[in-house]
Amino acid sequence: MSTVPSADLPVFTDVLDAAARLRGKAVQTPLLESPLLNDRLGGRLLVKPEMLQRTGSFKFRGAFNRVSLIPEEERRRGVVAFSSGNHAQGVAAAARLLGVPATIVMPSDAPPVKTANTRAWGARVVQYDRWTEDREAIAASLAASSGATLVRPYDDRYVIAGQGTIGIEIADQAAVLGIEADDVLVPAGGGGLVAGVSLALAERLPGLRVHSAEPEGFDDHRRSLEAGARVGNDPAATSFCDALLAPTPGRITFAVNRALLAGGVAVGDDEVCTAMAAAFEYFKLVVEPGGAVALAAVLAGRIPVEGRTVVVVCSGGNVEPALHCEALRRAAAITAG
Amino acid sequence: MSTVPSADLPVFTDVLDAAARLRGKAVQTPLLESPLLNDRLGGRLLVKPEMLQRTGSFKFRGAFNRVSLIPEEERRRGVVAFSSGNHAQGVAAAARLLGVPATIVMPSDAPPVKTANTRAWGARVVQYDRWTEDREAIAASLAASSGATLVRPYDDRYVIAGQGTIGIEIADQAAVLGIEADDVLVPAGGGGLVAGVSLALAERLPGLRVHSAEPEGFDDHRRSLEAGARVGNDPAATSFCDALLAPTPGRITFAVNRALLAGGVAVGDDEVCTAMAAAFEYFKLVVEPGGAVALAAVLAGRIPVEGRTVVVVCSGGNVEPALHCEALRRAAAITAG
Repeated sequence: MSTVPSADLPVFTDVLDAAARLRGKAVQTPLLESPLLNDRLGGRLLVKPEMLQRTGSFKFRGAFNRVSLIPEEERRRGVVAFSSGNHAQGVAAAARLLGVPATIVMPSDAPPVKTANTRAWGARVVQYDRWTEDREAIAASLAASSGATLVRPYDDRYVIAGQGTIGIEIADQAAVLGIEADDVLVPAGGGGLVAGVSLALAERLPGLRVHSAEPEGFDDHRRSLEAGARVGNDPAATSFCDALLAPTPGRITFAVNRALLAGGVAVGDDEVCTAMAAAFEYFKLVVEPGGAVALAAVLAGRIPVEGRTVVVVCSGGNVEPALHCEALRRAAAITAG
Repeated sequence: MSTVPSADLPVFTDVLDAAARLRGKAVQTPLLESPLLNDRLGGRLLVKPEMLQRTGSFKFRGAFNRVSLIPEEERRRGVVAFSSGNHAQGVAAAARLLGVPATIVMPSDAPPVKTANTRAWGARVVQYDRWTEDREAIAASLAASSGATLVRPYDDRYVIAGQGTIGIEIADQAAVLGIEADDVLVPAGGGGLVAGVSLALAERLPGLRVHSAEPEGFDDHRRSLEAGARVGNDPAATSFCDALLAPTPGRITFAVNRALLAGGVAVGDDEVCTAMAAAFEYFKLVVEPGGAVALAAVLAGRIPVEGRTVVVVCSGGNVEPALHCEALRRAAAITAG
């Protein structure tokens, strides 16, 4: 494993600084629970609903924090990002709020709602073929030719710090509600969200166990944490969790996660559908497949909740209506046996 | 029009008392907005998402306030309520929290999710035939034989005061966000929610115009406000807004609404489907048909939002997955023309 220079590593005060920058800009999402679902589980489950965040996912937090740190004289040259959709919208919205032009490199098969919304936020979208082209090379070339700043989706100290503001909110809200949680589960693609959350909670609620949650076939965090080094996914793997298809943990995110996470869990597509249906039924929330993996892991029993208190982050809700309905139908078929 | 004794009429301090009782018991739902939807509308639209409330609708507020006022010595004899579903769940949940046995009279064709959840909250459900039996008579007889307290769905001073806590939250949250709203739209069945909200806002934000929103065919508030007296709906009218099928405005609620509302608007089922799809797309929220009528009225242009600021209450989210999917499909077909 390569050593990450300490200047690249986020620290707790970065998260506090991000929280100050995001005040009045990001939604402070509530911490929700359903007594009926708690009855069923025999424990206490709390949901941090980041689909209620600006742009429909947590990504706005990291993007806004990062873009706001670009020096004034560099802002007019713009920002460039590559993303399958949620980071794209987060960067586009942050750039618009800060008056910075944005160009986003997106796969041509990204969910149409994500591409359309990125454009609606005022960004220029450059499409590429996920199977034959290298998005990082396209983005780097765009940045080099224009002098724009590249805003990485997860392997960035200040992006991670922005996502970590969710951990601060969880700690504050748990204190107000008088809750002492045992575990927190966080969806992981490149690992920026779970790195930021674990960084914040290691300081604010030490002793709390933080776990990554991933789709089966894309459980590179789970396996990397077990191996103690970054390992990749089978390039042939598929999942309908479009937000969580990063090939390996990030270099910086894994340096944080390796030190702070209790472990990782993985769930199958059927379990994700069941979680999307539970979010609909018990919380009246729309969760996209990738956003539902942490909830899915708890409902599937990967982390015990009976007699305990568990927090899950539902990280986004940018899903096509037809796919959402299909997931709910599939969940009903599973329940009917 | 019959005169309502002043002892039956809610006053602003009842709403403040209710807010104190509900603190820590009810969810303080956020006030949400979507910059992308605002762009489309050319104005500012804020949503008060009461599907995030305990039991999935605003009804918990009024029910908890009312049940908590039952003297200790009468509580063990229980409470009785009649409801097509949301008041049922609100009373059942409030009764459980306060340790009071609950019996709920529900139509046999109520949405299965509402009947199942009412039972899950620990209430006994007595079913009746909506077309041949009188639910009020059944509930009154149950109350008389058991000594239980009848908790009316809307025509009750303290139920109205409980729903009015939404108005207090809107005023507080608008102040924090620096918003000066022009209009507030509130779904109306029996009119308890809109009465409570208008009572709170008349005191906290005088000058703000409050409107009732109803399904076409059940627009008894709109027509009663125009006539200056309570008029009923055509008994043959149908709507898929199951939560809003009260035959006339309430006696007490209309006394409040007649004095305080700016007017009423009505929307068709297609407009409701479009609003349910907008809630899904822009807010990632599940709204039931009846809960979507105020949002539908704004999106349909019944109240202008261009260059203005409008608040809508989305009053509940207790809808079957299949019906929700059907509404989203219908909305997509309307958009496609």
